[in-house]
Amino acid sequence: MNESRTEIAELGEFGLIDHLTKNFEIHNASTILSVGDDAAVIDHFGKQTVITTDLLVEGIHFDLMYTPIKHLGYKAVMVNLSDVYAMNATPTQITMSIAISNRISLEALNEFYEGVYLACEKHGVDLIGGDTSTSNKGFIISVTAIGEVTPNKFVKRSTASKGDLICVSGDLGGAYLGLTLMEREKKIYLENPQIQPDLENESYIVGRLLKPEARKDIIEFFEQNGIVPTAMIDVSDGISSEVLHLCKQSSLGCVIYEEKIPISDESRKAAYKFGLDPTVCALNGGEDYELIFTLKQEDHDKIVLNEEISVIGYMTDIEEGSKLYTKGGNHFNITAQGWNAFQQ
Amino acid sequence: MNESRTEIAELGEFGLIDHLTKNFEIHNASTILSVGDDAAVIDHFGKQTVITTDLLVEGIHFDLMYTPIKHLGYKAVMVNLSDVYAMNATPTQITMSIAISNRISLEALNEFYEGVYLACEKHGVDLIGGDTSTSNKGFIISVTAIGEVTPNKFVKRSTASKGDLICVSGDLGGAYLGLTLMEREKKIYLENPQIQPDLENESYIVGRLLKPEARKDIIEFFEQNGIVPTAMIDVSDGISSEVLHLCKQSSLGCVIYEEKIPISDESRKAAYKFGLDPTVCALNGGEDYELIFTLKQEDHDKIVLNEEISVIGYMTDIEEGSKLYTKGGNHFNITAQGWNAFQQ
Repeated sequence: MNESRTEIAELGEFGLIDHLTKNFEIHNASTILSVGDDAAVIDHFGKQTVITTDLLVEGIHFDLMYTPIKHLGYKAVMVNLSDVYAMNATPTQITMSIAISNRISLEALNEFYEGVYLACEKHGVDLIGGDTSTSNKGFIISVTAIGEVTPNKFVKRSTASKGDLICVSGDLGGAYLGLTLMEREKKIYLENPQIQPDLENESYIVGRLLKPEARKDIIEFFEQNGIVPTAMIDVSDGISSEVLHLCKQSSLGCVIYEEKIPISDESRKAAYKFGLDPTVCALNGGEDYELIFTLKQEDHDKIVLNEEISVIGYMTDIEEGSKLYTKGGNHFNITAQGWNAFQQ
Repeated sequence: MNESRTEIAELGEFGLIDHLTKNFEIHNASTILSVGDDAAVIDHFGKQTVITTDLLVEGIHFDLMYTPIKHLGYKAVMVNLSDVYAMNATPTQITMSIAISNRISLEALNEFYEGVYLACEKHGVDLIGGDTSTSNKGFIISVTAIGEVTPNKFVKRSTASKGDLICVSGDLGGAYLGLTLMEREKKIYLENPQIQPDLENESYIVGRLLKPEARKDIIEFFEQNGIVPTAMIDVSDGISSEVLHLCKQSSLGCVIYEEKIPISDESRKAAYKFGLDPTVCALNGGEDYELIFTLKQEDHDKIVLNEEISVIGYMTDIEEGSKLYTKGGNHFNITAQGWNAFQQ
């Protein structure tokens, strides 16, 4: 945060919106009318429109004590873009609504929007609307992301077939380990504010938590190589939970091989340091924002050279259940232990 | 609220979504894929897509002490549909995200969604997605409404011309008077819980506050009669504020005649009872969700027989300012004293 502090009330709602949106350029021909009217207008010119929305609440979804506010803006956009990519679609616009308490200065809000704009520019997305308001307590963020897809080329969760390969992008568990580290450092700091956290050696897992990257590259790779996944979902709650969604919605079972689950060296080291099982972090950790997708077996050759994609198992009949085959030769039922906001 | 109480945590997030969306039918061919995937998919088949969003925060935008939760669901949808109509567009879909504290039971949430569905059915709108989460404090509602419009037939705020008539639908000030009444009754109740409020004689203004109706009928009337307003906005912050938006964005001034501002007998009586000026309530009250639009003078004949539309003034050169001509013959500058969430 900068040293000077401007109160938001000095600007008022319309002044604030003008201030926050004045320097933002439109990237897409599909953005017909942007911020400044009762609604925005878009035209995907014959393509279909994909829409997803997420609500992020301070103290539930993020902790401003260890989340730089610019990163928060970036991540709030990114988690929604990830849902658009998970439909095999290209994001084109977002709306961003916020409610803020008087704890947030204009300078902090500027930084938040720097993160928002950075995410938008990186993915060629236009900010076309939103709402700004006050809250009695905490920072509330609601993002709606809009994308486009060639008619009926979107990829659902419910269309996997028996025998399809289960693939995942990138590596898993890092974001959860970043969260574990930050929560631990926060506790140490609260007990003794003299001790400054040293995060330098853990920049990978911290980055996975604070600065996730929605997998635009994977969707582009699909298009360039004529690949259409049979089903797809993004990893917000951990792959156990996501794989079970694919199974349930496709009325199938699955086998996942523990040894095939991609986990980075940094995540593995951090897990051992914290006394955690790296596989459990990958299965149940969540917030990695990778893509899990199923693929016809004959398409295997098309992905085999992409180092960002791992085959971790395959779909089976529903009667066979959803199984994890461990390195030790055991077969466990996969259960969703992902994050449940209602049971915290 | 019903007598039985079910805790939301018993269902979990996905169980809750299933529960809340299971009985909802799809009304629109444009809804290609609804609730249950990473994103929804829509196709407006050659029409343009209109998008608007609003964030409603308990204690800022609504008070559950006097807002029946079913009405809250209804109103949360309606205020967004009103923004779609204000673009001269037809609403087709909404997304609804909520964050709730453990104070809200499943029974209360069912009532909330009854209101949501009632509003959707009345306007032929599909609920296609959303997000459900917890909050540490208070009920948070984020709605995105989506509509369709024939390409480039949407109506902006910035396209009024000098000499255009300024028209308004329905009557004004009622919602603010309803709010004044409810706040007064709340204060009496908090001081002495034995006194039950008697609202029967004030059902009109209470209805205007708690159950606003977005003006679908006006947009349909435009279409049936070949009317295209030159500019339009809906009344959320009071007509002073809205007329100034039209003036500023169209680079014009205006004259409004006090005697032409439509105010119902019920609102007028209530205003006098509370010691308020009915005109001030209409100008600055807000939340009426009527439409204000400008019209070419030659179109006057097309609206003159519609009793739901009043001509209240006309647009002038910007140099002439934005003026209210009072019944007493005075000319005042119009100033926006509408609701500013940041200055409460």
